[in-house]
Amino acid sequence: MRIHSGSGKSDVRSVLFEPGRLAEPDRLVLIDQRALPFEFRFVECTSAGQVAAAIRNMTVRGAPAIGVAGAYGFVLGLKGLKGGGKRELTARADKIFTLLVDARPTAVNLKNAVSRVMRACMHSRHAEEGRMAALTVAKRIDEENSVACRMIGINGARLVKKGARMLTICNTGPLACVEYGTAFAVIGEAKRQGKLELAYACETRPRGQGSLTAWEMQREGIPHRVIVDGAAGDLMRRGLVDVVVVGADRIARNGDFANKIGTYQLAVLAHENNVPFYVAAPMSTFDHGLKSGTHIPVEERDEREVLEFRGARLYPAGTRALNRAFDVTPAHYVKGFITEVGIVRK
Amino acid sequence: MRIHSGSGKSDVRSVLFEPGRLAEPDRLVLIDQRALPFEFRFVECTSAGQVAAAIRNMTVRGAPAIGVAGAYGFVLGLKGLKGGGKRELTARADKIFTLLVDARPTAVNLKNAVSRVMRACMHSRHAEEGRMAALTVAKRIDEENSVACRMIGINGARLVKKGARMLTICNTGPLACVEYGTAFAVIGEAKRQGKLELAYACETRPRGQGSLTAWEMQREGIPHRVIVDGAAGDLMRRGLVDVVVVGADRIARNGDFANKIGTYQLAVLAHENNVPFYVAAPMSTFDHGLKSGTHIPVEERDEREVLEFRGARLYPAGTRALNRAFDVTPAHYVKGFITEVGIVRK
Repeated sequence: MRIHSGSGKSDVRSVLFEPGRLAEPDRLVLIDQRALPFEFRFVECTSAGQVAAAIRNMTVRGAPAIGVAGAYGFVLGLKGLKGGGKRELTARADKIFTLLVDARPTAVNLKNAVSRVMRACMHSRHAEEGRMAALTVAKRIDEENSVACRMIGINGARLVKKGARMLTICNTGPLACVEYGTAFAVIGEAKRQGKLELAYACETRPRGQGSLTAWEMQREGIPHRVIVDGAAGDLMRRGLVDVVVVGADRIARNGDFANKIGTYQLAVLAHENNVPFYVAAPMSTFDHGLKSGTHIPVEERDEREVLEFRGARLYPAGTRALNRAFDVTPAHYVKGFITEVGIVRK
Repeated sequence: MRIHSGSGKSDVRSVLFEPGRLAEPDRLVLIDQRALPFEFRFVECTSAGQVAAAIRNMTVRGAPAIGVAGAYGFVLGLKGLKGGGKRELTARADKIFTLLVDARPTAVNLKNAVSRVMRACMHSRHAEEGRMAALTVAKRIDEENSVACRMIGINGARLVKKGARMLTICNTGPLACVEYGTAFAVIGEAKRQGKLELAYACETRPRGQGSLTAWEMQREGIPHRVIVDGAAGDLMRRGLVDVVVVGADRIARNGDFANKIGTYQLAVLAHENNVPFYVAAPMSTFDHGLKSGTHIPVEERDEREVLEFRGARLYPAGTRALNRAFDVTPAHYVKGFITEVGIVRK
């Protein structure tokens, strides 16, 4: 993944739609994020079902990236309806909507993106027109997302003072966002502006997305240190963190937001230690239908993600684990939301 | 490790001194905690150097256990001085004192125990008398520690209400304390008194001592769930934790204390969510020479503990990590110190 030095734009995208030539089907090409940082390989999807599975098993992950992947997945799902009329289109659209949106429940970007694509195709008179309308909107979502992430980096870097030591959790870079990233884009832009002294990447158990962040930071030349999730508070208490920036999977109307498990802790610790805590996310992460964080659906994943590592047990047979993938942080811990349209404060 | 149902006393000790018969040397037999929970094996030490190495490489770990091991290690170090006079005794004692105390810097139990044994033998007129005096005191430290841990369990369980869900970090059970445990003893005693609903064991990266806790909890029939370290705050915020109990490696005069990295975070999160936060530790963990936590020496361990797992890399080559093994929690987060003499409050 070669990086253009000017902007942090990557020349390989984690989600890439390739229209089929002649009789070939359209394909959605995904960087297989399960194999990184040790193996760089791709997974190709030609159906909505394959895209839903890739979202579920985290071949593609990151709220913005699964939004874009879901939108294209919807387009793939409309194939084979060429001769279909409006009724076939509606029936198929309903089915693939549910399939895709149910793949992962917490990130609203997925639901928002698939809903937009679905609305676009519902105005069509027949299936092929519907597919074309869906594709147009999917591409628009993709482009809007890239522009949004670029702007998030620029808007966020304005908040960063020279010599900053910035802490983040999970992976919010190009892999998670197709391009640029969210919290990662802020750190990357701060680095390009010469403001960054050091980035701390939380390892982010159980799936260890910190290793994706470390991989991306190496590639962009961002100076960084990995820490275990339990070490973040100690760094803040010792005055070694100047700002915390995290991503988000869903933001309620009142500013409560869901993000990777461990985020809430960082927010409380930042608050306790007077470290500014920012959330970087595109506007598509806001769920205007939700009054507060109480109603954000939080995914519980297989407890083996906690109990095993690369197939090897970490615990005695019979040990049980809890594995909520996300937590919800109340709005009052957030100093501001860094979006493509500027900094949103309460 | 069969557990006597009445008290939680285990019939295999993590640290066992065996006097040599006839010409055999004395031996210190340690449960190899690096191999657990998958392999139950012992390591035998016959010299102070071997004991120091076993403490350093965490064959034996846990503040009380390394205190007891260090005391016996000192005794082993005095062998071969039979014909020695006071001068040889003093020279040897100075040497092995440093060797043992430097093995791990943070837990004061080690320094306290080795200092006590050293003082005892310094009153002797010749080497063999010194060795006998040291052995007598080492055994006393060992016995006092077991009684203290038993009392910590009993004193702590008084603070626990029926139906309690208790959260802890690292391993503070019989393995860490030779017998009973500290925070673990409180949970175990609460369970025996029918007060415990569920224990949460933090996995405790990077070394994952939560797996030792899960192993011990299984053996004592304590209902438990393992969680990643980033999930503790979320549980507290959702009202699912009634009390947090942790161990300690060193407690300063003002109540600031050092414990496993991640402990400070739990204290802040408990405070923020009105969950009582207790520290369970024998009086030997208090360092009366230290005014506050600022001066507690915190061990930094090899960053490979964070970057690798069972010898396999988790991160791209060249990635750097921070690996402070402990953090310091200010006293004002602590509701009380559960000791063998009762609950110590500010």
